[in-house]
Amino acid sequence: MYTGGYKAGTEVKSLQLNDLIEIEQMAAQVIPKGGFGYISGGAGDEWTLRANRTSFDTRQIIPRVLTGKSMPDMHTTILGVPLASPIMVPPIGSHGLAHITAEAGTAKGAAAAGTLMACSTVSTLTLEQVAAASTGPKWFQLYMLQDVGYSRELLHRAKAAGYKAIVLTVDTTATGNREADARNNFKFPLQFGNLDIRGSGGDIHQLNSAFAMKMDPKIIEFIIKETGLPVIVKGIESPIDAKIAIAAGASAIQVSNHGGRQLDGSPATFTVLPAVAKAVNGRVPVIFDSGIRRGQDVFKAIASGADVVGLGRPVIYGLALGGWMGVQSVFEQINRELSMVMQLAGAQTVEDIKHTQLA
Amino acid sequence: MYTGGYKAGTEVKSLQLNDLIEIEQMAAQVIPKGGFGYISGGAGDEWTLRANRTSFDTRQIIPRVLTGKSMPDMHTTILGVPLASPIMVPPIGSHGLAHITAEAGTAKGAAAAGTLMACSTVSTLTLEQVAAASTGPKWFQLYMLQDVGYSRELLHRAKAAGYKAIVLTVDTTATGNREADARNNFKFPLQFGNLDIRGSGGDIHQLNSAFAMKMDPKIIEFIIKETGLPVIVKGIESPIDAKIAIAAGASAIQVSNHGGRQLDGSPATFTVLPAVAKAVNGRVPVIFDSGIRRGQDVFKAIASGADVVGLGRPVIYGLALGGWMGVQSVFEQINRELSMVMQLAGAQTVEDIKHTQLA
Amino acid sequence: MYTGGYKAGTEVKSLQLNDLIEIEQMAAQVIPKGGFGYISGGAGDEWTLRANRTSFDTRQIIPRVLTGKSMPDMHTTILGVPLASPIMVPPIGSHGLAHITAEAGTAKGAAAAGTLMACSTVSTLTLEQVAAASTGPKWFQLYMLQDVGYSRELLHRAKAAGYKAIVLTVDTTATGNREADARNNFKFPLQFGNLDIRGSGGDIHQLNSAFAMKMDPKIIEFIIKETGLPVIVKGIESPIDAKIAIAAGASAIQVSNHGGRQLDGSPATFTVLPAVAKAVNGRVPVIFDSGIRRGQDVFKAIASGADVVGLGRPVIYGLALGGWMGVQSVFEQINRELSMVMQLAGAQTVEDIKHTQLA
Amino acid sequence: MYTGGYKAGTEVKSLQLNDLIEIEQMAAQVIPKGGFGYISGGAGDEWTLRANRTSFDTRQIIPRVLTGKSMPDMHTTILGVPLASPIMVPPIGSHGLAHITAEAGTAKGAAAAGTLMACSTVSTLTLEQVAAASTGPKWFQLYMLQDVGYSRELLHRAKAAGYKAIVLTVDTTATGNREADARNNFKFPLQFGNLDIRGSGGDIHQLNSAFAMKMDPKIIEFIIKETGLPVIVKGIESPIDAKIAIAAGASAIQVSNHGGRQLDGSPATFTVLPAVAKAVNGRVPVIFDSGIRRGQDVFKAIASGADVVGLGRPVIYGLALGGWMGVQSVFEQINRELSMVMQLAGAQTVEDIKHTQLA
Repeated sequence: MYTGGYKAGTEVKSLQLNDLIEIEQMAAQVIPKGGFGYISGGAGDEWTLRANRTSFDTRQIIPRVLTGKSMPDMHTTILGVPLASPIMVPPIGSHGLAHITAEAGTAKGAAAAGTLMACSTVSTLTLEQVAAASTGPKWFQLYMLQDVGYSRELLHRAKAAGYKAIVLTVDTTATGNREADARNNFKFPLQFGNLDIRGSGGDIHQLNSAFAMKMDPKIIEFIIKETGLPVIVKGIESPIDAKIAIAAGASAIQVSNHGGRQLDGSPATFTVLPAVAKAVNGRVPVIFDSGIRRGQDVFKAIASGADVVGLGRPVIYGLALGGWMGVQSVFEQINRELSMVMQLAGAQTVEDIKHTQLA
Repeated sequence: MYTGGYKAGTEVKSLQLNDLIEIEQMAAQVIPKGGFGYISGGAGDEWTLRANRTSFDTRQIIPRVLTGKSMPDMHTTILGVPLASPIMVPPIGSHGLAHITAEAGTAKGAAAAGTLMACSTVSTLTLEQVAAASTGPKWFQLYMLQDVGYSRELLHRAKAAGYKAIVLTVDTTATGNREADARNNFKFPLQFGNLDIRGSGGDIHQLNSAFAMKMDPKIIEFIIKETGLPVIVKGIESPIDAKIAIAAGASAIQVSNHGGRQLDGSPATFTVLPAVAKAVNGRVPVIFDSGIRRGQDVFKAIASGADVVGLGRPVIYGLALGGWMGVQSVFEQINRELSMVMQLAGAQTVEDIKHTQLA
Repeated sequence: MYTGGYKAGTEVKSLQLNDLIEIEQMAAQVIPKGGFGYISGGAGDEWTLRANRTSFDTRQIIPRVLTGKSMPDMHTTILGVPLASPIMVPPIGSHGLAHITAEAGTAKGAAAAGTLMACSTVSTLTLEQVAAASTGPKWFQLYMLQDVGYSRELLHRAKAAGYKAIVLTVDTTATGNREADARNNFKFPLQFGNLDIRGSGGDIHQLNSAFAMKMDPKIIEFIIKETGLPVIVKGIESPIDAKIAIAAGASAIQVSNHGGRQLDGSPATFTVLPAVAKAVNGRVPVIFDSGIRRGQDVFKAIASGADVVGLGRPVIYGLALGGWMGVQSVFEQINRELSMVMQLAGAQTVEDIKHTQLA
Repeated sequence: MYTGGYKAGTEVKSLQLNDLIEIEQMAAQVIPKGGFGYISGGAGDEWTLRANRTSFDTRQIIPRVLTGKSMPDMHTTILGVPLASPIMVPPIGSHGLAHITAEAGTAKGAAAAGTLMACSTVSTLTLEQVAAASTGPKWFQLYMLQDVGYSRELLHRAKAAGYKAIVLTVDTTATGNREADARNNFKFPLQFGNLDIRGSGGDIHQLNSAFAMKMDPKIIEFIIKETGLPVIVKGIESPIDAKIAIAAGASAIQVSNHGGRQLDGSPATFTVLPAVAKAVNGRVPVIFDSGIRRGQDVFKAIASGADVVGLGRPVIYGLALGGWMGVQSVFEQINRELSMVMQLAGAQTVEDIKHTQLA
């Protein structure tokens, strides 16, 4: 599957984890340098990448201790999909960089963890292969392509394969300046399952040159018309864009800065979340990603307006280290943390978290 | 007393101290790594542990210099107990990790320093042994257990042994994610005096599994009914909980985040103290802990609404290094600092500190 | 051309750049230590030098993603001069310190990049030599000299040589305390083309002793009267000075703190830009410099009131590393970044940037 | 003169200085470790010592550039004493720790620099010796002693010796916890000229035990009555104390936290200066010290309400390195910086600085 001698992870095992911080350095031992730089890095000076983490420190959770609440219940739903906890696998490209089972491993792990996974347009496997490997709920993520006809074909294939919603990524009309890739002279060492026109050996600029460079509300309408599926608009940091997306029929808003990989100097997502949530005003659910590593981060994001959060890089690190079982271990770890945080904060349910005031 | 070759401190001597900051590294030379990690560490990323210290830097003491005041008097009382200074020993588990005399050493040192000590449910010695060793005032701390009958038994034993108040800890319905313990693979190397059902060799999760996972005002009422003793509710960071506790009959509120050991991402106690004190509004005394290391910290806490502060880890470090005499040295050090701060700040009495405006 | 064995860069080649941050250390390999310290250093503790960079982190760009905009157009004009992008070469002294082609190389590179360059009074070459080497638009910068007659002569020569505007620097009535130069015992190793009275071997204090030590609006009027050319007043951080300059006939205001080389402890230019722009109120264009290294910095400056920005040290580093082709590479790099930022931020034109609200 | 093999500086020479920051490490090469720790250190965690420096970064000087001002005039007066610049030598104990000429060297250097010096109660030489060595203006600083009669004697001797004002230090009713001294086991290696009851070999606690531990407005009245000289009250951080001092007859207020040597956790003096100056409201001059190292610090302090500033540790470092000529060099350095700052900021006179608005 790989070119250029690239070697991804091969093990399938449960992981002994203390947290989802140290897992990054554990994964760096398994994923080749170029791939690791691509996965872990951010754009430019990585200011936004760092701010995605440090912004959580700007708010605190005041424990409520005399509530009589116990044994938190983390179950929730998103667009009708039941989840074991409010944490899902957001769309992430090229899982094959991390593990030879690629998205099939992640899908199996997500299902085992009782959560849903979004399959990326730029997956290593074909969307049908990912669907076949998944026994849990799944969404398909679309990078709108310059080739509209092929975009339509992907949407129809996704619907046919059982994907229940489309995540439209809107923040990638240009490639972020991911300098680690340039320094590592990183070339993709593997094919893209859904994009047969692009062979391996290209860099990310070549890949992204296939993407539409213009994004407007009509694309949302186009997807709805073609599929009849709910559309999640991912990559929103502005309240104005949230309103535009909803007006165009979006079923959910995903607050994201692409994990700090696109526009360096854009705000941390946790910073803009309250304003976007206010603009959404409960009309559709809000999904949040970029920076989640801790149960307390999940809690803070939900207390700030999110309904569900996406957990990205740590899932890929778990995949690299232990295949589907590693993914499951990652979810066990963060779910254990979230449960502890809910208990200590006095929140019985996800709904309780939403009604918590942060300090 | 110890299993697994664990060796706690054995010396009994006065300590030459410059401050209660460097004592931590001194103690790390005496306490085995696992025990030291357990004592010194905090939960998660230790953000709250650090914030407990750095939060004191957010306020300053403006010296008052032309007051005609001199020779500060640090005496005060808490719930009728006279204290040589407004600094006491709060409940801390397993003193035997630090020194072979365990709580008996601490109790003797606290009495020598003219202050009171609270004996923890999870003490190394039995509460009766601790009481026998103590010639000073003492309180008993209760972790409400899932076994209500045994909790009642402990309360009755405590009253019989001469404890004059019950400190109910309410912030421990789940165990914080103390990762140092996991990394050190720390197992308790010694028994718990009051909990014969739990032998040595367990980890903190096993220990805490005996604790009640649900905390509500009825537990406060239960303790009052069983003992007739004043109840201090410890582990409050929310003004709402302070009000609930007082309504349920609490005789004092202890603002604490368990030394940053429970919910990482909760606020520094010094940050929330003014709001809790405002909610309490003088109806009952406020005890403060988590982060005190300096005389100026004591001053700032009292100027922000506390009546008395608890000094935790430094006392255990003093115990490790010098037994009861080490505990006494620790109090001499912080009392010397507090006296100096009061003199330089122009405060004659603890009451004067309360009327000081911080910058 | 050089004395004391000084060796400037000699290569003429395109540069492989990841960003204009790392170019500084690349250039430090080529430029001798004394010259590099002179170019890269700031005044005093270099607080202002650092603040010029960190101040950009105080504001963020919220990406607008559903705008339907694509293929950003960076073209703009300044005082009637068309520019390929809103980034120009501001006046910088002694390009010969960096490269043997000195200002001729920079001028050729700037022209190749489709932008304008300002030639400094203290250029290595004569202003006529610089003009002859330049095929693009050019301005002449004046350090008003104590010798008014010679100042007049320079202005007339500049006009005759085809310079289309005069940049009057007003922030150099004393030399900043550039301590790196003192520590390196740096002496100018080369002549100044326009100032034949000052030979090589002098230090910056000797050089500046030729400058006028008094700056007032009459100097602006004097230049207008002598040349009939537009006057840009450079070195403004105060709204009051901006108003005075405009009242005296200035055609543009250049917000600058001389790259942190003059008054350490003065504000970062990005910090004062909004207030100066408000005072200018659109009456004349605002040029901004001091601290620009990234496309996002350009975007933020323009969104905060600038029309065009000056890019200083990175241009000199590009010159040192690759002569005129290095200068061109530097502009290609920052233009590529700016284009990406505009695309990701949803700005089609420079005018769109001006109407962007930063977070 | 010295005991215990202590060796202070002996050289008399001009210094080549880049700034008054690096002079500290230069001086550390000459002054023995114990003495250097005593001079350079602060109290406790040295938070206030550091804040004295970093607080200056909270305000910036906006250069005014089109003012037509030039050749700044730094002359000013304080309580009728003409000064070459608004920078004086505040009272500092034991100059003999730095240089064998002790206060005689400093006095000669201060006179050469055209400024005044305050001689400390705890000077190495007798106040008469210091007066004899000084050809410039001089004040005498009093630590009010427990022995009132001897305090009176000192005041009368000071007046007789030609001191023109009395600086009453009011912030030293207890000794700060200067931990460097304890760690270095520092004992004073030399006598105090004015306190014959205290021999060498004592530590600072022994020394300070002679001081009055109670400070009130009557002491100000006492000094006025005994001497008829103006009294400067030094060690004020509270507006209330400033008002009390003025009401008791103080002729000037000295905002000081004793260089961060007394109450750690007290505010930086630059932070409280505006509030104290507002309380003083121009009724008497305000002298400022603690943290001054740069010309820009002097400017910022004066723009924030000070009339004159004291320069402490750098003067002692200059004395250690070059005797009286070193002191002169230190003043030349900071005066050169202040002159440059005034020129670049557009301030012609000290009065102009006072009317400058900081950013």
